[in-house]
Amino acid sequence: MSYSVVGQSVPRVDAREKVSGSAIYTGDMVLPHMLVGKVLRSPHAHAKIISIDTSKARSLPGVKVVLTYEDTPKIPWNSAGFPPSPGAILVEDQYILSDKARYVGDGIAAVAAVDEDTAIRALDLIEIEYEVLPALMTLERAMAAEAHLIHDAEKNIYGHTPVVIGDVEAGFAAADYVFEDTYYVPKVNQVSMEPCGVALAAPDRDGRVTIWTSTQMPHLVRRITAHALGLNIGQVRIIKPPVGGAFGSRLGVVNEPIAALLALKAGKPVMLKYTREEAFLATESRHPISMTLKTGVKKDGTFTARQLTSYIDGGAYATHTPSFAGPVAGWFLAMYKSPNIKVDNYSIYTNATQCGAFRGYGNPQVVFAVESQMDDIARKLGIDPLEFRLKNHPCAGEVWLWSGWAIESCGLEECMAKGAKAIGWSEKRNEGAGGNSRVTTGAAGTKKRGLGMGYMMHVSGARPMLHETSAAIVKINEDGGANLIYSNSDCGQGSGTALTQIAAEELGIPYEDLVMTKTADTDVSGFDIGSHASRQVYSGGNAVKGAAAVAKQKLLAMAAEMLQTPAEELVVEEGQVWVSHDPSKTLSVAEVAHAAHFGSHGHQIIGAISEEPAGNPPVYAAQFAEVEVDTETGVVEVLKVVAAHDVGTAINPAAVEGQIQGAVQQGIGYALTEEYRCDLETGRPLNPNLADYKILTSVDMPPVETILVQAASETGPFGAKSVGESGLVATAAAIANAVYDAIGIRFKELPITPEKVLAALHERKES
Amino acid sequence: MSYSVVGQSVPRVDAREKVSGSAIYTGDMVLPHMLVGKVLRSPHAHAKIISIDTSKARSLPGVKVVLTYEDTPKIPWNSAGFPPSPGAILVEDQYILSDKARYVGDGIAAVAAVDEDTAIRALDLIEIEYEVLPALMTLERAMAAEAHLIHDAEKNIYGHTPVVIGDVEAGFAAADYVFEDTYYVPKVNQVSMEPCGVALAAPDRDGRVTIWTSTQMPHLVRRITAHALGLNIGQVRIIKPPVGGAFGSRLGVVNEPIAALLALKAGKPVMLKYTREEAFLATESRHPISMTLKTGVKKDGTFTARQLTSYIDGGAYATHTPSFAGPVAGWFLAMYKSPNIKVDNYSIYTNATQCGAFRGYGNPQVVFAVESQMDDIARKLGIDPLEFRLKNHPCAGEVWLWSGWAIESCGLEECMAKGAKAIGWSEKRNEGAGGNSRVTTGAAGTKKRGLGMGYMMHVSGARPMLHETSAAIVKINEDGGANLIYSNSDCGQGSGTALTQIAAEELGIPYEDLVMTKTADTDVSGFDIGSHASRQVYSGGNAVKGAAAVAKQKLLAMAAEMLQTPAEELVVEEGQVWVSHDPSKTLSVAEVAHAAHFGSHGHQIIGAISEEPAGNPPVYAAQFAEVEVDTETGVVEVLKVVAAHDVGTAINPAAVEGQIQGAVQQGIGYALTEEYRCDLETGRPLNPNLADYKILTSVDMPPVETILVQAASETGPFGAKSVGESGLVATAAAIANAVYDAIGIRFKELPITPEKVLAALHERKES
Repeated sequence: MSYSVVGQSVPRVDAREKVSGSAIYTGDMVLPHMLVGKVLRSPHAHAKIISIDTSKARSLPGVKVVLTYEDTPKIPWNSAGFPPSPGAILVEDQYILSDKARYVGDGIAAVAAVDEDTAIRALDLIEIEYEVLPALMTLERAMAAEAHLIHDAEKNIYGHTPVVIGDVEAGFAAADYVFEDTYYVPKVNQVSMEPCGVALAAPDRDGRVTIWTSTQMPHLVRRITAHALGLNIGQVRIIKPPVGGAFGSRLGVVNEPIAALLALKAGKPVMLKYTREEAFLATESRHPISMTLKTGVKKDGTFTARQLTSYIDGGAYATHTPSFAGPVAGWFLAMYKSPNIKVDNYSIYTNATQCGAFRGYGNPQVVFAVESQMDDIARKLGIDPLEFRLKNHPCAGEVWLWSGWAIESCGLEECMAKGAKAIGWSEKRNEGAGGNSRVTTGAAGTKKRGLGMGYMMHVSGARPMLHETSAAIVKINEDGGANLIYSNSDCGQGSGTALTQIAAEELGIPYEDLVMTKTADTDVSGFDIGSHASRQVYSGGNAVKGAAAVAKQKLLAMAAEMLQTPAEELVVEEGQVWVSHDPSKTLSVAEVAHAAHFGSHGHQIIGAISEEPAGNPPVYAAQFAEVEVDTETGVVEVLKVVAAHDVGTAINPAAVEGQIQGAVQQGIGYALTEEYRCDLETGRPLNPNLADYKILTSVDMPPVETILVQAASETGPFGAKSVGESGLVATAAAIANAVYDAIGIRFKELPITPEKVLAALHERKES
Repeated sequence: MSYSVVGQSVPRVDAREKVSGSAIYTGDMVLPHMLVGKVLRSPHAHAKIISIDTSKARSLPGVKVVLTYEDTPKIPWNSAGFPPSPGAILVEDQYILSDKARYVGDGIAAVAAVDEDTAIRALDLIEIEYEVLPALMTLERAMAAEAHLIHDAEKNIYGHTPVVIGDVEAGFAAADYVFEDTYYVPKVNQVSMEPCGVALAAPDRDGRVTIWTSTQMPHLVRRITAHALGLNIGQVRIIKPPVGGAFGSRLGVVNEPIAALLALKAGKPVMLKYTREEAFLATESRHPISMTLKTGVKKDGTFTARQLTSYIDGGAYATHTPSFAGPVAGWFLAMYKSPNIKVDNYSIYTNATQCGAFRGYGNPQVVFAVESQMDDIARKLGIDPLEFRLKNHPCAGEVWLWSGWAIESCGLEECMAKGAKAIGWSEKRNEGAGGNSRVTTGAAGTKKRGLGMGYMMHVSGARPMLHETSAAIVKINEDGGANLIYSNSDCGQGSGTALTQIAAEELGIPYEDLVMTKTADTDVSGFDIGSHASRQVYSGGNAVKGAAAVAKQKLLAMAAEMLQTPAEELVVEEGQVWVSHDPSKTLSVAEVAHAAHFGSHGHQIIGAISEEPAGNPPVYAAQFAEVEVDTETGVVEVLKVVAAHDVGTAINPAAVEGQIQGAVQQGIGYALTEEYRCDLETGRPLNPNLADYKILTSVDMPPVETILVQAASETGPFGAKSVGESGLVATAAAIANAVYDAIGIRFKELPITPEKVLAALHERKES
């Protein structure tokens, strides 16, 4: 199948404004009479509020509004952006300001003042008396029988998501080997370039409020904000300017309700812009999870039973956690076939900042554990890890347990083969139990090299967990160009470019002639569940393609009238319509559009649809890492990563590769350097800044070779599947397995820091 | 027919933001790095440009861009906002900056600088050498054979719009009386509260430009601006914030092309905000016209021939003028029946600021002339002026010559009857030839009272002169509220409120639950020809009603499934759906909408249409004025105005009355005080400010009694016709006729100032 613009690496629609710095982000905006909002945050991880005196703050000149819990609607809500659905378990335990301090950084009061200095001074003038309670900073402490309850719930363990398929006990009994390991992954922050938590709220008409916000999901933020404020949905308008990265951090409301309440109380616009420290302190990071895997396997590599028991540290508020436990189970279930599977996922409150979505949504955690253990099992059985995985993963036509539907297409085998070739798998990987590096470097052979790999599958949307609603409108302008109105949730990933390509391709006009709305606006774009679950190109793309198809149908009907030919005999491509069997009978799209507007009837050709796609095709990847471990310093250097991804049709190959490259960078950070830490006694964060929290920069990056495998889906637009999240899912496992290959030590806890490596090497030497 | 919200005087959707001052107009906006634009204007009415030296201006620190004609695209354009159509005669004689000075105020150069002071200083530093040519400030001088040509055309008379029906010469020959009179109406300015000419342009993506502008027609401004800049239509985005009045002044581009060019050259946003003086000096006012009427009539009051010859002073650029000559003919043709009619309208260039649209679009000029002469004829024939008019105007079912279509409905007779009763026509009007005031006041009876009336008909759109394209999209939110996306061209008149009522009524949800987009945005709203020709409620209303009907149909189909009842048996009203014969079977719209979004399929109910309405029903009015003329000072005081208007169904009666009240205020100004004057030798304006140009304020206003006659149209939404322009059309004629009634002097030239009254009284005394 050959396309005009689909499959072309055309420049991003927002390339120039992004690189020139002319893009106007929410935080750049200025409105007349705009006030500055600030939030007073708890210095205690767990404390009752005995009293709050705001009188001094209120009397400071320039202070317009001071709010505490008492001034907020007494409506509990949940910040996670879920549409109502069986897959969404929404524990509503949040208020716009807290009635009790549940983590260091919990919002206790808020002010709006004429400028930032005044707002900060006002915060200083608010006097709060706390009764400090024990800080429950670990899963163990929070789950202890005598633990103080963080919420008015029976226990701090407030959710349990069980799955049972077959009988795992019988499966373990039938196994030749049973492996049981516990893995732990830490809290990591998304660290988007634009810190999370930027909202500008302005009163609008009678009791209405407009909020410009850096979000991934305008319509669901509208929904939650309206609920939290006690308003009808139509009384809230969300506008999404360009967003400087998100990675899940903006998947739900962040500070929109508080900005809106300040603005409504002040009767003036209020800018509420979190600092980088606040983005660490008070917005949602990736869940730390303790995962125990138990796997029964026959000597031939067939699984008899698979079991996962996980304890998910959701932090101080529920938000995503109870719902998130579902996909955590889904990733585990769908990776490998087994007649017997059991999952028990528990959601736990602790006195840490609440956790939410971060690229992968539980999959990076699960894949790190599963793929680490797979490596151990393969070595134990003496089976090539590639073969072992291919033998056990479900393939095209088989049931995919994430959705319960048949797998549309699967390019994993090709990913494995091409990736292995590119990394030099058969030449460079060490044999046997690991730690017998064929390649050593360093002065005395102290640096040891190894190869590792990890496999992953991921989704192209959230069906059937959620309805995948998107809407699109395509209108053809009088000169044959077109506008696409879509709830543009592009948060930097480039989906707006891909969707423009899809619409232009379907409509049959040049890419340059199709303009997609740049900012989403809930007043004008159709209901859309936002940018998450890697759904933009698949679900959004299907809606966009559908709207373009409706417009094209009308265009061809009009052209048919003008050319006196049945519409079925017409073709439209690159702005030209012609009769398929007689290309000399032709009209430009511009001529047809002009005639529509100004000819015998005056109307514009408009295609509008709202629908969800037919499926949810999984994507696949095999990632390979070559590492060098310095046994004197403990430093793990990643020498190369090969990321072979089956993404279905790559709408824009350069953008797909960019997505994978950026994700691998986060994956290496997850493996080796990133951990958002706090003092375990006080709960005070230890590294809420970019000096102490170590993300990789471009100079820290090894070469990353991306290989695109395009096993087209049946239901995706032009065969596309997804790429948004998948690039980082397998990276940590590949690196951990490479470290094992290099030095024969299995790290079950991330990140694999030099300290941990040295400690493990010393321990081995001593034993 | 009873409606839920149609026909209710609900508060305007923008009431609170307008009265509280919180509405953000274009001129209130601030963008990061925004520059200030300024235009250098010619001090000469007519001059060749010998040289321009911009070097000093360019080197002034803080100046970012300096433009002259040489820097602009060499693409001629026409500023009038017309879609391509047979009724639009677009003489393209404008450039973004002028190559020759053609009026005092013509834009010769432009700058963009970091602030206003710098921009003004830069203008001072631009050195221009002019060769001054004779200023052709009157029709006579411009039409003279030897006149210097203002443009590269053969003559300064550049347009002729003839209409011939029957044989007027034969008609005059068959008449008992032939009346021939010449009337002159001056140039008047719209004087919107927000001065005309406010645009903020910002570069957007590759070569694209977004322009926030105070306009009446976003899509046509997009079209013209793109043409003037040599861009595709999709490369220009027009956003219309709230507009502070327009009255025709913003009917086409004003300063959007120059703002856009400055922004594109600067690579930064540019705010170009005209002062009040510039709004007088450099934007389009109402055409002065010299009109000669010749009318043949039988003794019984039947017309045998009617003839209009008009010379339209279009000023220095063509813009609307040649097209405008068509409706000028149309108003004349359609007012009264006659077997023989002839019209010759001429378009003339002069060295005055160009003229364009102002509420009524030629009708106030024509009606002043026609209705003044009708009064004279009625008196001559001894027929009651009311009867005389009713005898001769075409009525429902007859052909309306404006469109050539049958008249849908006509409430004129009722307007006449109710208006006459309210003003006290039979008790207070003087008999005979006028000037025999039955009521005199003042110390020595020097103040004389009189009554007069005028009739008018007007349009509800521009069909068939133009295609009346509008598009609307209605989407029902998950809580049963809805958004209406429409190219909202409300420029202060309140059409947004009426359209919201229409959509809510049709959809069957409460008014408060329907939110219409507040700002128009060409990227997201369907093609729409804007706010003019009193078309918003009729044409726009039909589109809005149509989109709501499509959404309702889908809503009922879904409800039918849920209630297991055929959709035809369902009713929806005020947010509730029920089975017509069994109201106990019911669902709320919210329940249906929720099920659509989150039930068995995930989709939003959306209705989208683009179409033009079936007709163009005329509206009618009879206006009555009672005046008191002070024969010592010449001052004409209007004691009362009765405005009886057939508007079809009044969607929002309070808003309709407000429209009429405001229009009457402008009509009284037209009659008595307003004239934008210039020095006839130099062309320099004499009163381009609100100290010297006299508009009426609220304290100057007499009581105005509005009477609504609702002769429903067949094709309008819920029977609506129009009201936007009609309120001022007949006012000047009513007042002139009342003055005649009071003092027996016929004024054929507006405004009827104290100087003219005194002069006429003296002349009569002397003769």
